[in-house]
Amino acid sequence: MKIAIDCMGSDKGPEVMIKGALTAASNYNDLELVFVGNENKIKNILKNIKIDNHTYKIHNTTQVIKNHDKPIIAVRSKKDSSMVVAARMVSNKKVDAMITAGSTGAYLTSGLLIIGRLKDIRRPALSAIIPSYVIGNKEALLLDCGANMDASSDDLVNYAIMGHIYAKELMARKSPRLSLLNVGVEEGKGNKVVKETYQILKESDLNFIGNIEARTVFNGETDVVICDGFSGNVAIKTFEGAAKALMRKLKDALMSDFKSKVGALLLKNNLEEMKKDLDYNQYGGGVLLGIKGIAVKCHGSATELAIEIALGQTYEMVKGNIVEVIARELKKKTSKEN
Amino acid sequence: MKIAIDCMGSDKGPEVMIKGALTAASNYNDLELVFVGNENKIKNILKNIKIDNHTYKIHNTTQVIKNHDKPIIAVRSKKDSSMVVAARMVSNKKVDAMITAGSTGAYLTSGLLIIGRLKDIRRPALSAIIPSYVIGNKEALLLDCGANMDASSDDLVNYAIMGHIYAKELMARKSPRLSLLNVGVEEGKGNKVVKETYQILKESDLNFIGNIEARTVFNGETDVVICDGFSGNVAIKTFEGAAKALMRKLKDALMSDFKSKVGALLLKNNLEEMKKDLDYNQYGGGVLLGIKGIAVKCHGSATELAIEIALGQTYEMVKGNIVEVIARELKKKTSKEN
Repeated sequence: MKIAIDCMGSDKGPEVMIKGALTAASNYNDLELVFVGNENKIKNILKNIKIDNHTYKIHNTTQVIKNHDKPIIAVRSKKDSSMVVAARMVSNKKVDAMITAGSTGAYLTSGLLIIGRLKDIRRPALSAIIPSYVIGNKEALLLDCGANMDASSDDLVNYAIMGHIYAKELMARKSPRLSLLNVGVEEGKGNKVVKETYQILKESDLNFIGNIEARTVFNGETDVVICDGFSGNVAIKTFEGAAKALMRKLKDALMSDFKSKVGALLLKNNLEEMKKDLDYNQYGGGVLLGIKGIAVKCHGSATELAIEIALGQTYEMVKGNIVEVIARELKKKTSKEN
Repeated sequence: MKIAIDCMGSDKGPEVMIKGALTAASNYNDLELVFVGNENKIKNILKNIKIDNHTYKIHNTTQVIKNHDKPIIAVRSKKDSSMVVAARMVSNKKVDAMITAGSTGAYLTSGLLIIGRLKDIRRPALSAIIPSYVIGNKEALLLDCGANMDASSDDLVNYAIMGHIYAKELMARKSPRLSLLNVGVEEGKGNKVVKETYQILKESDLNFIGNIEARTVFNGETDVVICDGFSGNVAIKTFEGAAKALMRKLKDALMSDFKSKVGALLLKNNLEEMKKDLDYNQYGGGVLLGIKGIAVKCHGSATELAIEIALGQTYEMVKGNIVEVIARELKKKTSKEN
């Protein structure tokens, strides 16, 4: 198996990408990494790493897509950028998958324009893993978290099918519980698109357990949360903002006087543990589902550990033939409709 | 001034409503409370309270709208329910405003059907105060947080006008900074409706400062956040869920071993303070803006303090002639368009 690593996209530079990927790769003996990016920089980093037993290649590129570049223009004009070259490798089957921590816009555009949509899907969806805080550590998959701003009910039903497959194949959920993000749990709630989607999912073979409110999304009561890219993005980012704000508030509380500083010292380990739990880095990368290849997107400031986890996730996606399984199920749905 | 108190809507029973309202009323010498609900129950509660100097009336009602009642059916059939009677008093100008902690659905329906929309508005919006955690205690107003599921750009522009007025009159912001909830800060982001709204607000006289992402909504960078009722509801409820989840995680961390229990003891006061800060109860009630009267909605489990704060807010809204100011500004907009 070959996986391309876009070495130039991370806010932290190529080192995180390379080290994270190498650590992950040491777990697999059938994996070859292709480091895509500035060859000199990559070689310089590799020089200082003790590499045992891994095979890797370097593919030199001369351009980099920056976060402030306009995605469509950048993807079209920077043809020798690490992100575009990695995507082209996926498209040409030179590699089985790619990983990037670069600009989300350029990632989505590369997925749509270079790797391309599956035949039976109008708009791919970006998935995200959301943490759970109540029942064990049962994370849920949320999609779409920002690829498609104007989703139709047909789009949302496709997301349900893809989410079902992802949760089954990659999250080991036997019969994934699917929920529709809504403003209330009762049938008949929500906007026009969500109401239509509810009716279609109710009649489907999927394990649709109904509407879910944003306040219970983190409770471990569901495996897959279906929503349009606008409200999904709002949910993800509200959580991120709330977590940051609350940790800052906690820090203030801990540092406000001498007594609390002593208390904070006693709690240090437990609070570190809690902070780690809140760290999005441990929850793997986002995946654009509905395209003709595997491309995983990590956070721009993802740590080595995050890259390592995302690479493991990518490996499993290739092994599970996730793209073929999704293509087959979407085709089934289309044939039923016609 | 007269304010009707729906005594029967709170999850905690009439006592919270009555006590909270009486405490607030002691601050004003021109305020008469009208307790709407079961007269016997209300009298029983009042019997045990030392009331100095307040004037109040009791308006007996025989029905109660429950949380599981279908809003439209309940509002139409339970004509002698405390919520419907209070709304009718607002509509007939028997009182200047009402407060309820009852079912949100019935509240919205009463607002729309009994009090009625202003002439120049298609869909009223429900506002909510959201806390801020960075710059001082500069809360922001978010609307719509759930009244209108399918908002047009014209609706959102109306929300901007109403939000501007509310922030100016009731939150003492001289030139309220208005933001559009979006998936990114750049112009051109978002769904069709949001993109259209951006263009209209950009050309308007309002102090529109552009898009805002959900992760920075709590940073004190804005005074008014404009969004459709679906995504606004998702934002509010994600924050609620995140805050609960994080406080639970913190509790677990504090109670996990002996050392941390000692630490927790030292931190007790500061953590209590933090918990109080996160309490939605202190942030007043939601207001359905765009109707022909003032009706304030508190959380079903709002405390006495929350009712007290909400009553102060209601008093200020009446004093500020908020409905007349909104009606005038919306009329101006309509005349400009024609």
